[in-house]
Amino acid sequence: MAIIDKLIDKITLLKNPSVVGLDPQLGFVPEHILEESYDTYGHTPKAVSEAIFKFNTEIIDAVYDIVPAVKPQIAMYEMFGVEGVNAYLKTIKYAKSKDMIVIADAKRNDIASTSAAYATAFLGKTKIGAMEEEAFGADFLTISPYLGEDSVGPFIDECKASDKGVFILVKTSNPGSGMLQDILSDGKPIYEIVGAYVEQWGEALRGNNGFSPIGAVVGATHKEQARRLREIMPHTFMLVPGYGAQGGTAEDLAVCFNSEGLGAIVNSSRGIIAAYKGKCPPQEHAQAAREAAIQMRDDIVKHI
Amino acid sequence: MAIIDKLIDKITLLKNPSVVGLDPQLGFVPEHILEESYDTYGHTPKAVSEAIFKFNTEIIDAVYDIVPAVKPQIAMYEMFGVEGVNAYLKTIKYAKSKDMIVIADAKRNDIASTSAAYATAFLGKTKIGAMEEEAFGADFLTISPYLGEDSVGPFIDECKASDKGVFILVKTSNPGSGMLQDILSDGKPIYEIVGAYVEQWGEALRGNNGFSPIGAVVGATHKEQARRLREIMPHTFMLVPGYGAQGGTAEDLAVCFNSEGLGAIVNSSRGIIAAYKGKCPPQEHAQAAREAAIQMRDDIVKHI
Repeated sequence: MAIIDKLIDKITLLKNPSVVGLDPQLGFVPEHILEESYDTYGHTPKAVSEAIFKFNTEIIDAVYDIVPAVKPQIAMYEMFGVEGVNAYLKTIKYAKSKDMIVIADAKRNDIASTSAAYATAFLGKTKIGAMEEEAFGADFLTISPYLGEDSVGPFIDECKASDKGVFILVKTSNPGSGMLQDILSDGKPIYEIVGAYVEQWGEALRGNNGFSPIGAVVGATHKEQARRLREIMPHTFMLVPGYGAQGGTAEDLAVCFNSEGLGAIVNSSRGIIAAYKGKCPPQEHAQAAREAAIQMRDDIVKHI
Repeated sequence: MAIIDKLIDKITLLKNPSVVGLDPQLGFVPEHILEESYDTYGHTPKAVSEAIFKFNTEIIDAVYDIVPAVKPQIAMYEMFGVEGVNAYLKTIKYAKSKDMIVIADAKRNDIASTSAAYATAFLGKTKIGAMEEEAFGADFLTISPYLGEDSVGPFIDECKASDKGVFILVKTSNPGSGMLQDILSDGKPIYEIVGAYVEQWGEALRGNNGFSPIGAVVGATHKEQARRLREIMPHTFMLVPGYGAQGGTAEDLAVCFNSEGLGAIVNSSRGIIAAYKGKCPPQEHAQAAREAAIQMRDDIVKHI
C-alpha cells in the first residue's frame, strides 16, 4: 500500500488525524530519567541522548495504540552531536517497531545533487559496496522550497522509488512567516504560488484516497490562508503544526480537512510530551501525554 | 578578533578568496582509500565514514596553507547515518586544528525555538548538567530564509553570543533558483527583498573591515543578479557557490567583490576534491586538489 494511503488508513482506523511531535527540549525530559542517565554516563552527550531516547520510548509506548504518527524534530537531537543523532535514529526505529508512521522533521533542501543525498539519507537506501541500507529510514521528510523545483525534484524521485513522502513548507506556523511567504506578486501571495506548485508536483503520485505523498506544511495559526490553500491544493495532504502551545485551535485548523474529514494531520509537540508539567509527578509523564493526546484527538475530531 | 574579520584577514594573508567544498560523494573517494577501509570494517557505514574522513584529511593537509576555509556539506555525511555524522564532526575538528575557517553547509532553519536548537548545535555550546560543550563547533552555518525574520533571529543571537557567522540563502546557484527567488513583487524580485533584509540584520554586527558576519549565499551562475545584490548589500559578505563544475566563471563572480577586492568567498567542491579524476592516479588526488586550488585562486584573483 502506498505510504500516503497507509497514513490515511491509520488515521481512519484510529479516528485520529494527529501526530505527536518528539521535540525533547531538555527541560521537557523528567528529572528522574535525566538523573539516572547522568549517574550511568556522567554529564555527557551520551547521558542526555540515552535519557531523550528513554523519554521518547515511554511516550511512544503510551500513545502508539491511539496516535498514528510521530514527528521527531532533528534540531533537538543535533544539539547533542553524534550521540544525539544516534538517539534520533533509535527513536525512528522504535516508533516503526510499534508500527507508527514517522515524519522526520528536518526541513532539508539544497541544489539537486545535494538534495539527492538528503533524500537518500532520510527516505532511501544508501549503497555501500555490495550492501544497501537505510540511514534514517523515515516515512516522510519535511523539506523547504526556497531553491525551487530542481531542488525538490530529487526528493520526489526518491518518494516514487521508495514509496515515501515529503511535506513541503508552504505556510509555516510561526508569527513571522509572512515576511517572505505573504509577499504579493500580481496580487497573489508567495505561499499560494508555492502551494500551487506542490499540488502539481504531487499529481502523478496520488494514491487510492486521492491524496498525494507530496504534502504541504500549513500552520494552524493562519486560518484564512489555510482555507485558501485547501482550495488550491485539493489533493495535497497537509501537515499542520501550530496547534496548542503555538496558539492554533481546532476550530482554526478544521479548514484543512475536506468534507470527508480527511486531508490533514495535526501536530502537537510540547502540548503532549510536556503535558505533565505542573499537573502531575514527572513519573507519570507518559500517562499525562496519553491523556493530552486523547484530549487533542477529541478536540480536533469534534471540529472537523 | 571577530570571526568575519578573522575570515577576511585570512583571505588577505593568503591572497585567496576561495573555499574548498568537502562534499565527498562516494564516487570522489579514491578506490584505494575505500578498499583499505572496507578491508578493516567490511561494507559498513563505519568503513565509508572512515574513508571519507581520511580523504578529507588528505585534502585539508594539501591545501590548508593556501586556502582559508573549508565548507563541508552535511548531506553527503548524513547519507551514512550516525557514522557519517561522526565523520562530519571529525572533519570540522581536523580543519580547525589546521586553523582553517569552517563553514558548515547545512541550510538549516525552523520556527524560533527550533532554530535556537540548530544554532546551538552548529555554532554555540550545548549545556549538559554542569558541562558545556560544542556539538559541531563550526565558525559559520548556511541557513534558509523561507520562514522569515523570527526564524533567523535565534541564529543571529547565537552569532552575537558566540562570535560566529551565518550565510543566508539569497540567490542560489542552481538553474531552477528563479522559480521562487525571481518572483517579482512591485517590480522587485524576492531575492532582492531577502537581500535587503540580510543587509539590515547584519547592521549591528559589522566588524573592522565593514562587513557583517550575517552573510549571504549568492550563486556565481547569476552575474547580473549578483551585481545588483552587491549594490543592495554593501556590507554583506557573500558565500559564492557555482564556480567551475556548475558553470560560473571568475569573470561572472567578480561582481561580488568590492573595489578593494573584498566581500566574497568563492566555493568549489568537485572541481577541487575530484580534480584528480581522469588526470592522474588516485594516489595523487591530494596533489591534484592542491594544483586545482592554486589554479582557482589565480583565476579568481586575476578577475577581481
